[in-house]
Amino acid sequence: MTMPFVARPENEPQSRVLRLLRDEGPASRAELADRLDLARPRLTADLERLTDAGLIRTGGPAASRGGRRSMTVTLEPSLRFAAVDLGATSLTLEVVDAHMAPLVSVEEPIDIRTGPRPVLARVTEVLAKLRSEGHFDTLAALGVGLPGPVSFRDGVPVSPPIMPGWNRFPVRERLAREFSCPVVVDNDVNTMMIGERFGGVARTVDNVIYVKIGTGIGAGIVVHGEVYRGTDGCAGDIGHIQADPDGPVCPCGNVGCLEATFGGTALARDALAQARSGASPALAERLTAKGGLSAVDVGLGAAGGDPASIGLIRDGGRRVGVVLAGLVSFFNPGMIVIGGGLAGLGHLLLAEIRSVVYRRSLPLATGNMPVVLSELGGRAGVVGAAVLASDHVYAVS
Amino acid sequence: MTMPFVARPENEPQSRVLRLLRDEGPASRAELADRLDLARPRLTADLERLTDAGLIRTGGPAASRGGRRSMTVTLEPSLRFAAVDLGATSLTLEVVDAHMAPLVSVEEPIDIRTGPRPVLARVTEVLAKLRSEGHFDTLAALGVGLPGPVSFRDGVPVSPPIMPGWNRFPVRERLAREFSCPVVVDNDVNTMMIGERFGGVARTVDNVIYVKIGTGIGAGIVVHGEVYRGTDGCAGDIGHIQADPDGPVCPCGNVGCLEATFGGTALARDALAQARSGASPALAERLTAKGGLSAVDVGLGAAGGDPASIGLIRDGGRRVGVVLAGLVSFFNPGMIVIGGGLAGLGHLLLAEIRSVVYRRSLPLATGNMPVVLSELGGRAGVVGAAVLASDHVYAVS
Repeated sequence: MTMPFVARPENEPQSRVLRLLRDEGPASRAELADRLDLARPRLTADLERLTDAGLIRTGGPAASRGGRRSMTVTLEPSLRFAAVDLGATSLTLEVVDAHMAPLVSVEEPIDIRTGPRPVLARVTEVLAKLRSEGHFDTLAALGVGLPGPVSFRDGVPVSPPIMPGWNRFPVRERLAREFSCPVVVDNDVNTMMIGERFGGVARTVDNVIYVKIGTGIGAGIVVHGEVYRGTDGCAGDIGHIQADPDGPVCPCGNVGCLEATFGGTALARDALAQARSGASPALAERLTAKGGLSAVDVGLGAAGGDPASIGLIRDGGRRVGVVLAGLVSFFNPGMIVIGGGLAGLGHLLLAEIRSVVYRRSLPLATGNMPVVLSELGGRAGVVGAAVLASDHVYAVS
Repeated sequence: MTMPFVARPENEPQSRVLRLLRDEGPASRAELADRLDLARPRLTADLERLTDAGLIRTGGPAASRGGRRSMTVTLEPSLRFAAVDLGATSLTLEVVDAHMAPLVSVEEPIDIRTGPRPVLARVTEVLAKLRSEGHFDTLAALGVGLPGPVSFRDGVPVSPPIMPGWNRFPVRERLAREFSCPVVVDNDVNTMMIGERFGGVARTVDNVIYVKIGTGIGAGIVVHGEVYRGTDGCAGDIGHIQADPDGPVCPCGNVGCLEATFGGTALARDALAQARSGASPALAERLTAKGGLSAVDVGLGAAGGDPASIGLIRDGGRRVGVVLAGLVSFFNPGMIVIGGGLAGLGHLLLAEIRSVVYRRSLPLATGNMPVVLSELGGRAGVVGAAVLASDHVYAVS
């Protein structure tokens, strides 16, 4: 097997050709030259190199522009990427084509706490099975999202709180050896944001804050159309911003962190308290029936009109809103996207977040700024992992 | 007079040559080719164009690199830029050379509230006088910092709270007509940050938060070495982030904004309360002597050991620290710089800010992150305005 051609940073026009073909489909040479503002001789040379590298080929005839019909340029249709989205309790895996269209998708339960060896062995097994079934022959690249902090540069998790045994485990090297292809590893908030920006609601927005509200709370940041990771790669850690100076103590040791006041863990804790104190007969009834409570029960309670459940979601939305209002004042984004499991709480949560953000930020900053729910929902992470993998091959650093 | 050559964005190598010569002084062709990773024929063509445009010339002999001594390339020594830093009550103006070295400096009181016409007439008068004294003949560009929100794109102030009559006044057009040169207008927090990054403490740092604590509080943001202005140009408005949910009502209508709890205005208010309530005999004595109190009096009180004054500064530092800790979690900067008039409160303030930021942020984010006082102090704004003006001529958009 030959390793796929990897465009170098100095091949920037080639990278722009590849991204444009990925994001918008086949195009004629004239369209490419126009859209990318490239001189025709330069473009011709670049297209030749990309053809030799097996990344593009000549497609069908282009729409007429008046003169002789020309042929389109298209990404090589046999290119395959794999995307792996690892959650605390689930594995989602897709094989996609050059345009990120899913060819096959697998979803199954895992337990991330069993450690990297069994989990990555299972990823390998699933991928090997898909290969043996003919879904791909070789992979151009593999993208992986992990539910914890990741050193993007090193391709390893860094002290991930809910992933015992994974600290600095060489995820990238291990999988690259297994599949003889480049592997890109990132945290799940970034992959979700990249997915949402590629195929979801944030498609045309340059500066974005993507907020994942799941078990915990984190953010992904897009600056001028590119992921911003910060000086040490840990930007977006908004779960530990102080949301309530009189709030509960957080496992991190500080008081009133956003994540200690809202998110899956905090919501389950507060729901239990409401059920036990008698404040919510609805939640007490669910507790008796199920033996435990989660964010889903609060959502169902609210949908059923339980005032305590509605109150818990509103309180949480208000706290998220106060933190986001501060970030809007600082960052002046073009859009805020709310994703992650608790985005399933839907418009009750969203309405509260919006109300605080719009009330507490400069009118100039919020006049045109939508605060919206993720469009891709549970697929955002795996889409983003595929885009990351293709970005690597298409040489976007 | 011919208008100075303005390099276009596509002339990026030329722009990099100019910036390198500005920031690091004369260099040989070999050094330029190395440092900018340019092929020699390309560099030769670029240098020829820049020479024809009157932006560079051949300088003295370069240091020997073993072979024949070559000549250095240097910025045209006759280039002149002007920089104007307008504060609420002061005008600072400098004329600088191609390397941003000040040739002449003027500082005088003004009252920004008299409106744009008299203030800009005074700026014109001062500059005309400097020209008649031979400090310059023509200006390559003029940079202006204003004490309020500015639309950088349009070159006009936008609803500036302390500048009655200035809203949307065409500052850029007015001065450009007067001096027949490009004019760049920005808010003073950005000019201070640009100055500090050019000639101060943040010189080599890529991601920076610059916090100006003056009458009010605002921030400037550097992302990947460039000013980040946000989607609507109002990024950095941190004075209205909630610092205390039980705090005082802010003129903006919200409760507990950072600026309502600290900054020159808040500090003067709190000092007055302490003096009147008898909590601070030291401040009461100053009040009797002067008839009023300002942040300076609190600083002097603290230096003299007055516990109430020390407490006010510590409280303020703690509030700034909580807000900054949140921004560190979100943005993961490489450095925080504290500037503006109240930076004069010095290490007592800095110690409190540091203590909160280091305690409340991820160790990974703060391990190598200095929180430091501005080095340029009162000159930061005028230095930054000069750099902005030269950036424009050197075509860095």
